Formats: sequence, structure tokens, C-alpha cells
Amino acid sequence: MDLLSKGERVRNASRKLRLITTEEKNDAISMIAKEIEMHKDVILRANAVDVSNAREKGTKESLIDRLALSESRIQAMVQACREVIVLPDPVGEIESTRLQKDGLRISKERVPIGAIGMIFESRPNVTVDASILAIKSGNSILLKGGSDAINSNKAIVLIMKKALSLAGLPDGSIELVEDTSREVVKEMLEMNQYLSLIIPRGGAALIKFVVDNSRIPVIETGTGNCHIFVDYSADLEKSVSIVDNAKTQRPGTCNAVETLLVHRMIAAEFIPRVASVLTAKGVELRGCAESIKHWKMNPATEEDYFDEFLDLILAIKVVENVEEAMQHIEKYSSGHSESILTNDYCNSRQFLRCVDSAVVYVNASTRFTDGGEFGFGSEIGISTQKLHARGPFGLKELTSYKYTILGDYQVRK
Amino acid sequence: MDLLSKGERVRNASRKLRLITTEEKNDAISMIAKEIEMHKDVILRANAVDVSNAREKGTKESLIDRLALSESRIQAMVQACREVIVLPDPVGEIESTRLQKDGLRISKERVPIGAIGMIFESRPNVTVDASILAIKSGNSILLKGGSDAINSNKAIVLIMKKALSLAGLPDGSIELVEDTSREVVKEMLEMNQYLSLIIPRGGAALIKFVVDNSRIPVIETGTGNCHIFVDYSADLEKSVSIVDNAKTQRPGTCNAVETLLVHRMIAAEFIPRVASVLTAKGVELRGCAESIKHWKMNPATEEDYFDEFLDLILAIKVVENVEEAMQHIEKYSSGHSESILTNDYCNSRQFLRCVDSAVVYVNASTRFTDGGEFGFGSEIGISTQKLHARGPFGLKELTSYKYTILGDYQVRK
Repeated sequence: MDLLSKGERVRNASRKLRLITTEEKNDAISMIAKEIEMHKDVILRANAVDVSNAREKGTKESLIDRLALSESRIQAMVQACREVIVLPDPVGEIESTRLQKDGLRISKERVPIGAIGMIFESRPNVTVDASILAIKSGNSILLKGGSDAINSNKAIVLIMKKALSLAGLPDGSIELVEDTSREVVKEMLEMNQYLSLIIPRGGAALIKFVVDNSRIPVIETGTGNCHIFVDYSADLEKSVSIVDNAKTQRPGTCNAVETLLVHRMIAAEFIPRVASVLTAKGVELRGCAESIKHWKMNPATEEDYFDEFLDLILAIKVVENVEEAMQHIEKYSSGHSESILTNDYCNSRQFLRCVDSAVVYVNASTRFTDGGEFGFGSEIGISTQKLHARGPFGLKELTSYKYTILGDYQVRK
Repeated sequence: MDLLSKGERVRNASRKLRLITTEEKNDAISMIAKEIEMHKDVILRANAVDVSNAREKGTKESLIDRLALSESRIQAMVQACREVIVLPDPVGEIESTRLQKDGLRISKERVPIGAIGMIFESRPNVTVDASILAIKSGNSILLKGGSDAINSNKAIVLIMKKALSLAGLPDGSIELVEDTSREVVKEMLEMNQYLSLIIPRGGAALIKFVVDNSRIPVIETGTGNCHIFVDYSADLEKSVSIVDNAKTQRPGTCNAVETLLVHRMIAAEFIPRVASVLTAKGVELRGCAESIKHWKMNPATEEDYFDEFLDLILAIKVVENVEEAMQHIEKYSSGHSESILTNDYCNSRQFLRCVDSAVVYVNASTRFTDGGEFGFGSEIGISTQKLHARGPFGLKELTSYKYTILGDYQVRK
């Protein structure tokens, strides 16, 4: 089936999904869990093909780890279904309602967005997560995964489509684009007659390509160049724990810290303390000229400050004060998460007010930026832009709203 | 000054505007009102040049009426300022807040969007309305008006900039693009390093151009191909009043009805009744083959059903039932406002649930779709798309949010 026909199918399915009850959607997701569990061997076999292809191409092990599935990772997909089933359905929620003087009742009601296009790289669990979140919020989804995971994705989508059909959900609620070329992405981005939203999830190059070429509204997710600024007045021992947590607990996540900014007044004491803990855990440090005076490390380039390492690498810069820290963040940050560690009330206020990122912290690890931690349950990603969804992007952000007005033949005066 | 420099100025101003208090913003808007009132002669003289240029070009009178200013229209600008001053400031509002088990306080707080680009046609009052709404919500704005109104816009922006400077607001909070070519629009749409949002307001061709070419998130406003469906069970006398109100009260607005759908069962009775009232008021009717049997009118073309007439023209179509009415709306509507007139409970429920437009009515005129009517105060337009803002697009929709997190050195477990 060609791309346009798939787009049309997904759009048509979305019109039916609008009217499906929460119960029907939950039943369908439960059926997806059951079918995935029942056919896990099929998924594992397909995934083994992807993994062996990737090895042949000389893909590095950290990427193969993202691609590879196992019994326990498939169990995690099943578990994700169970978690989405228990989340409250945002569709139909009345956000606000008012009774006008003339008797008109105006209500703002949550509705599905429609047909969503998702463009993502490698990890096959995203295929399941995105699909079940779309279904739960009454949307259909057109998935375009990376070429690395094509066999896994085909197997997973086939199984999910069978589950939806058993549950009586409209055909076309989930579709996979099987052509994985860049050209097909471009075509997809022009299908605004069918798709209401595009969600890219992947590296900076993919996201830039989508933003530059899309005629469909885009919500950028996942680029996290996060900063921690250790102010002169911070508790240094606790600050070491926070930087350690933010860098090493899961370095491949978007909420991991990538650049550490240190107030000059404490640099001589703090840098060696944090560096000894981090290097003992295998973290490579890249510092500005001044930080290198306090610990032996590689010099940081301009690019290092822009980079999202997603790895055991940390850039370090000594700054004069909170203003210089904020200027650095304004210039280099991707707008994801930034934290100030301080005991100075004015500096904490200023940092909270001035820093223009999705999540701004005082005295906490950036690792908390997460749908689960925020009480949203599963998330489709972390949005780093300002329209519609910012920060953890969960079920509610997968909906729009409409106004319904109940009258008794009122006319406008 | 070239376009890029203006973009940079507006972006820089937005960084300062984030921190300005409600009081300072209100003072600045009050100063704009004062300066406009004081220099109304300057505005009227500039506008007279635009009007005479338009006449020379043979512009039709309805468009000249949109362009022309008068003492009372300038007074309306001043009044608009007063109305925006009394509106509550959305910036700083806490939408929700939660205290986590580990003591983290997570709050969702409204913040300005940043720098906004507004691309609009003719009416010079939009220049003031958009600017004061942007300022009130803490955003800066880069205005690109139509060539017809360039002299009026230059005069108005100069006066507003003087007012902002007197009030101590950052230079660059309001800027006007003086080159009015289509090429400059294209350049503006690529400035995503400076602008966070583009709002086009104008005809379908302008909006399509913006959507097709923008790298910046776009909120489409203003295209209103609105429908009223008169069901078999409607009160016909009251239905005549509603169609009359929706078509003739202000035919040039986006919430005016453009197509009337009539249930076959009542067509023979209703069409002559509504047609006699409308034609007496100078409305041109264009009907399907079946409606023409009930009243002498021009045949409607496929294009008529897609058109937003913005004029005393109404397309009419006879339909079999509510399903056919909804199919027509799904195909032809711009997603603005649709109304069903009915006494059938099931049909009212079905219409409310299935019709996918910003505002869906039972038994009321589509003319109520308006920021003022909805209690938002002024609006920047009516959004016909589903992300971020849908329907009346007021101050709140001119903001984003960020999460602020207050901790005591918590790390993620």
C-alpha cells in the first residue's frame, strides 16, 4: 500500500476513533498486551534479524543495546499496556463551562487530535508506547520507525493490528510506513490533508529535517542538553550527589546533565570533589581553561557545550555568577531541564524566573523530568518547544479541545 | 534596518519582557492609548494616503471600508487598549501544583511564548489589537501588515513605539516589517532562531502560503466556512431568525454562516420561508438542484460549498438526514463553527460528538464564536486548527507554561 493510501486510512480511522468509549479503548490495549505476550517469539525472531543486520553494518554496541529486545523488554511492553489502561482517559473531560446571561451553556471539552504521524529512531518499544498512548487518547497513528528496527517494527505492528481487529477497533488505527528512506519522511511531512500532528523523536538531525520540511504542526521531543549550575552558596557534598545522579544514573536519557556550570568562588574546592567521584565511575570530563586548573581533563570545545552527549561525558565551565550561568544556558541549552544548586534566595528566584526551559529546578537532579515522576503515567516524549505541549508530553497533551454550545435558539444581538 | 536585525531585536526584547510586572505592562498599554489619542491626526493623514492609493488601484469599496480609519475607529483602538488593561494577566498563573512524596514541589506556571510574528492583511486596527495583546501577555511582536495599509501601519507603530519607550518597556517589543513583498514573508517564516510562533490572519491564499513555508509553529486563524443544519424537528420560525442573524448581522465576519443545510422533510416549507426573509435583505442564494425546486435561485457549484463568501451570499443544500449533513461539513468545513437546529435529542448528541470543528452548537447562531462572547475579552483571532489554541484565541493562548521544581537536594532513585 502506498503512503497516501495509508495516510487516508489513518485519517478515516481517526474519525471513527473519536466516538469510541474508554472501555472499548482499554479493551483494545488489553488485547494488544495479550497478543504481544502470546507472540513474543515472533517479535524476538524479527528483532534478531535487525540486531544481526546492525552488527554486520558495524553499529556500535550502545546503539545495538537500544535496538535489541529480550524476554524482559517484551514483558516491559506488556507492562506499559497495563499502565496505560489504568490512566484516566482525557477525552470528554470538561475543562471549563459557563452559563451565559442569555442562557447559552458554553463548555470546553477535551477531544482527540485526530491522525498523528510519529517519526522515530531505533528503540522498538517506542512503537508500542506511542501506539497505545495514541489509541487511549482516541487518535490514530502512522508510525515511521528507523531502518535499523524495520523487522521488529513490522512484527510488532502486525500483532497490534490483529489485536485491534479482534477488539473491533477501526482498521487503520495503527499503520506502519515500511519504506524507511528519508524521501518518504518528506512526503509524510506534506500530508496535511491527513495528519494533524507530527511528533519526531530522535537525534538533532532528524528533528531539524522535520521542522524544516513539515507542513503539519510539529512537536519536537527529546533533545536534552541539560545544565546544572552550582552556585557559590550550594551545599557542596549534596551537590556532588546531584551531579553524580544527573550524569551517571542513566546517561543515555534526555534528562541527564550534559554541562556543569560552577561558580568561580567554589570552583577550586568543588571541581576536584565532583571530578574524583565522576571519573571513578568512568565519566570523561571536558573543561574550560579555568576548570582545567583544578583537575586534569580534556579542553571543552564550543561544540561540546552544544552537544547532547547521551554518554558518560560531562562538559564543565566556570562562571562568574548566576547571570553568566543563565547567559550560557540561554545560548547553549535545548530548552529541556536546568537546575540551580544554591542557598541564595535571590539567585534561586532569578534562575526560576529567567531561565526559559521546559523544567527549571532549584536544588534537585534534572533526572526528575519524566512523565512518570510528574504523575502523568506514560509519556510520548519530553517536548522542548513552547506551543501546545512543553515538558513531559502525556495523554492529555495528545488531545485538543472543542467548545460545545447548548442553546435555545439564541441569536447574537 | 534589515529583517534579520528586526528579528533579533524582537527576540532580545522578549527576553526582557518575561520579567516585566503586570503593572508595568498595563502602564505601557495605557501610554499607547494616550499617544494614539494624542496623535490621531497623524494616523488619519497616513490612512488617507493608503485609502487614496487603494482607490487609484480600483480596490472595491468593501475592502476600502476595511482599510479606512475615522475618528470613531481610532476611538475604538483606544477603547481596545482600555479593555486589555482590565483583563487578568495570565503570566505567572499556577495551573496546577503537586507536592511529591519526597518533598519536591512541582508547579506548572504560565509564561510568555516569546517573540511572535504576525502576518495580516488590510485592517489597521489589527496592528493595535495584536500589539497590545502581545505586550499584555509578555510577548514581543514582529508585525507584517499588507501593502494596502503600510502608511497607516507605519504611523501607528511609530506612535506605539514612542509610548513603549516613555513607559520604559524594552526597545524592540513591537517592530514593523516595512517591506510588504511576499518574499519578505518567506524570509520571516524561516527565522525560527528568533520567532517562536507565527500567526497569519487573512485570506485562504495567505494562510496556505504560511503553512507551506513556515519552519516556525503556525496558528491558523480566521477562515470561517460555517454551516447551519436545520433538522426535520427544528422550530422553523426560530430557525429563520437564526439563519438571518448568522448571515446578515455582520456578513464580513468569520463566524457568519456560509452554507445552510436543510433536512429534506422540511425543505419545501423552510426554504421559501428563510429565502423570502434573506432575499428581502439582499442576500444572494445559491442552491443545490433540489433547493432550486422550492425557491428560484442560482445553482451552487462545488466551489461555492468550499468558499468563505464574507458577503451577502448563502449556499443551500438539501440533505437526507443528520449523517449526510455531517458528511457535508466534514468535507467542506474549515473547522470553525457549525450549528444544528433540532428538537431531536439523539441528533443533537450525535452532531455535538461527531462534528470536528472548534465550536459546535445546538440551537444557536454561529455568530457567538467570539472572544468577547466567550468571556476572554479581546482575541487575536479564531483558531481553526487543533494544536495549542482552538476557537477564540485570547490572552491565555498567547502564553506557554513551564514547570518549576523546588527541592532540597533530591536525587532520583
